[in-house]
Amino acid sequence: MKQSQLFTRTRREAPKDEVAKNAQLLIRAGFIHKEMAGVYSYLPLGLRTLNKIIGIIREEMSAIGGQEVHLTALQDKALWEKTGRWSDAVVDDWFKTTFKNGAEVGLGFTHEEPLTALMKDHIRSFRDLPQAVYQFQTKFRNEKRAKSGILRGREFLMKDLYSFNVDEKTHNEYYERATDAYIRIFDRLGIGAKTYKTFASGGSFSKYSHEFQTVCEAGEDTIYVHEGKKLAINKEVLNDEVLKDLDLLRSDLSEKKAIEVGNIFTLGTKFSDALGLNYKDAEGKPKSVIMGCYGIGPGRAMGTIVEIHADEKGLVWPESVAPFAVHLIALFDEKGTVKKAANDLYAKLTKPTKENPNGIEVLYDDRDCGAGEKFGDSDLIGIPKRYVISEKTLKDDSIEMKDRVTGKVEMLSLGVL
Amino acid sequence: MKQSQLFTRTRREAPKDEVAKNAQLLIRAGFIHKEMAGVYSYLPLGLRTLNKIIGIIREEMSAIGGQEVHLTALQDKALWEKTGRWSDAVVDDWFKTTFKNGAEVGLGFTHEEPLTALMKDHIRSFRDLPQAVYQFQTKFRNEKRAKSGILRGREFLMKDLYSFNVDEKTHNEYYERATDAYIRIFDRLGIGAKTYKTFASGGSFSKYSHEFQTVCEAGEDTIYVHEGKKLAINKEVLNDEVLKDLDLLRSDLSEKKAIEVGNIFTLGTKFSDALGLNYKDAEGKPKSVIMGCYGIGPGRAMGTIVEIHADEKGLVWPESVAPFAVHLIALFDEKGTVKKAANDLYAKLTKPTKENPNGIEVLYDDRDCGAGEKFGDSDLIGIPKRYVISEKTLKDDSIEMKDRVTGKVEMLSLGVL
Repeated sequence: MKQSQLFTRTRREAPKDEVAKNAQLLIRAGFIHKEMAGVYSYLPLGLRTLNKIIGIIREEMSAIGGQEVHLTALQDKALWEKTGRWSDAVVDDWFKTTFKNGAEVGLGFTHEEPLTALMKDHIRSFRDLPQAVYQFQTKFRNEKRAKSGILRGREFLMKDLYSFNVDEKTHNEYYERATDAYIRIFDRLGIGAKTYKTFASGGSFSKYSHEFQTVCEAGEDTIYVHEGKKLAINKEVLNDEVLKDLDLLRSDLSEKKAIEVGNIFTLGTKFSDALGLNYKDAEGKPKSVIMGCYGIGPGRAMGTIVEIHADEKGLVWPESVAPFAVHLIALFDEKGTVKKAANDLYAKLTKPTKENPNGIEVLYDDRDCGAGEKFGDSDLIGIPKRYVISEKTLKDDSIEMKDRVTGKVEMLSLGVL
Repeated sequence: MKQSQLFTRTRREAPKDEVAKNAQLLIRAGFIHKEMAGVYSYLPLGLRTLNKIIGIIREEMSAIGGQEVHLTALQDKALWEKTGRWSDAVVDDWFKTTFKNGAEVGLGFTHEEPLTALMKDHIRSFRDLPQAVYQFQTKFRNEKRAKSGILRGREFLMKDLYSFNVDEKTHNEYYERATDAYIRIFDRLGIGAKTYKTFASGGSFSKYSHEFQTVCEAGEDTIYVHEGKKLAINKEVLNDEVLKDLDLLRSDLSEKKAIEVGNIFTLGTKFSDALGLNYKDAEGKPKSVIMGCYGIGPGRAMGTIVEIHADEKGLVWPESVAPFAVHLIALFDEKGTVKKAANDLYAKLTKPTKENPNGIEVLYDDRDCGAGEKFGDSDLIGIPKRYVISEKTLKDDSIEMKDRVTGKVEMLSLGVL
């Protein structure tokens, strides 16, 4: 894409009321726009990165048998009354509204109830199981405070997968597959090294749930990390019994602030019992379906990537989620020589090839502005590779390549690009 | 995809409270699920078709310079007060809710206000224009009645593009480009032949707006069609003056029921004036940006395709939006010969090739059920090409191919597939 056509501009200062580093940088770089506290729109660069995160999660969910659906935000009160979760006394972050006829309707903060009810149309017998169903869908949570940028929104995208199994054994096997998929996702997003499978409070059907916590000062959670075993315990459940369960010594753990980038939970029969999701076993006897749920917020993951990788100059994107792979910066001369060479190089790089069937994704800074502005914007936007083409580099028939992470600079011959 | 793994099942009857043909068939075929009146979730087959519709619209919006964003559903009351559209007396289909601090917040039924406000951060001078910005985003409309299935939802996906130009001339040129893009979209969706550019009521800045109306008995609108000129007039504006403007005779027009599948509208400076979206011209003088808006509902388009193409046996999808290209139906024998041949064929068809880098999209009915059920489900689901493989066809090393639209049957040698 030619940067002269991109409608967003960078800015020197973030809005004064924005205190979160992730939102400050993303707003300054033109990736997001703040509508209200905890409510952010995605602009072209931000949407490109968000969609790459979604793409990675989708691949991994599909690889563990997930079938994609899209449920609605509007929620039927009757379903939530069956599980006791309609009341504001039980769930305090509902947004609710009313139909013209005065009937109350909720805005989904999660989707166990409607999906469990939906599955009743499709699951009859043990032959219809196991199933895994997921979606990328907007959740609404009426948070009292929202000061963490896109780490905690009042409206945000969530990938939520729900598993349906005949018994605990097959459920547990799926839970492990999902755990492995989550580890792969965070690795691919470039936050794997700092992300720990974390033991957290369970429910009636399992002693623990698991969170995936990324160590980061901006995190709202406190965890106790065992580096050697690459696992952690959420402060909320840290006690002697848990240490014994996990065969850990308190002295081997270090306290860290962390961001919960994912969580997985054994629901057991809580929802299937309340909403009547049964199957007939091989003897024809009705049994409750065993459920699990598995969440990742793509926006929160994006915010976490920013918090971990950004530096004093701006955003720094891992290749897997960068809005573009290459930032081509042309320092135009008056004769037009650089413009011609840069246009040619842009055409060459973006051309489909066998290795890159869609061409290389290039943001081409073809704007009529100074080198300082171009370099500053480039650092702020954080594309992994910067190619600079100028009168000087053209003397050697080359470009100057700079790595955004390492800052390493090398000259590359135009012929090999 | 193997049909034995697809979690949805077809059903003989639609819910009793569902009166719309599109929703009845889509529910029976397992494409959608009714949550409440006017509120439908998309299941795997339905989401595949919806995503193909989105893909076609995205390509065409990108081709006319559209840059994709994603705005929020939650809407800031203050912005809408500036344009006078917050009041329920002015806009009667708002859904509104409240933050924990008691402040009111709306659920977007359209996005002129927030996008105009957002663009103020990015447009300064005539050099920053023109721009075209679009999104696929969920709209909420508190409709009194919702009996048309996915043709009119209380929650539905909308593609809305907004254009920003320096003057009327460049605006009008863009408006024509968008018109052409819309015509291409409806052609590609398989409803072009029945879709008419329709003159409808304008606003302060243009005498007419334009709707794209697809002739169909299920439509809520009445239009007057001129077949020869491939255009129409909405009943709401049909009068002598309009006939004279368009150089048409009343007697050449025929009255039809139609579905409004798209609309384009010159907004002029209504929103830019109210919200202060200005640019500086070449002399440095501030001027109001000229805006236009351009909407298509991908769900409504999907419902329209159903209404127009479905037959007494079920859904009929044009190739461009079918959930799969081929429905492979295996009629298993006891020896397992058919199963082996069908598995091989499925592997061969879905394998990436030069022509089909992602392989052919095949729904493979590998279920252990009778031929009658398989054929009935296949007709209901409506995939364009059906390949039947059985003991009988294997005697000739072939499959039987049936076209869902024409019903034409031919034998194809396994060797050529």
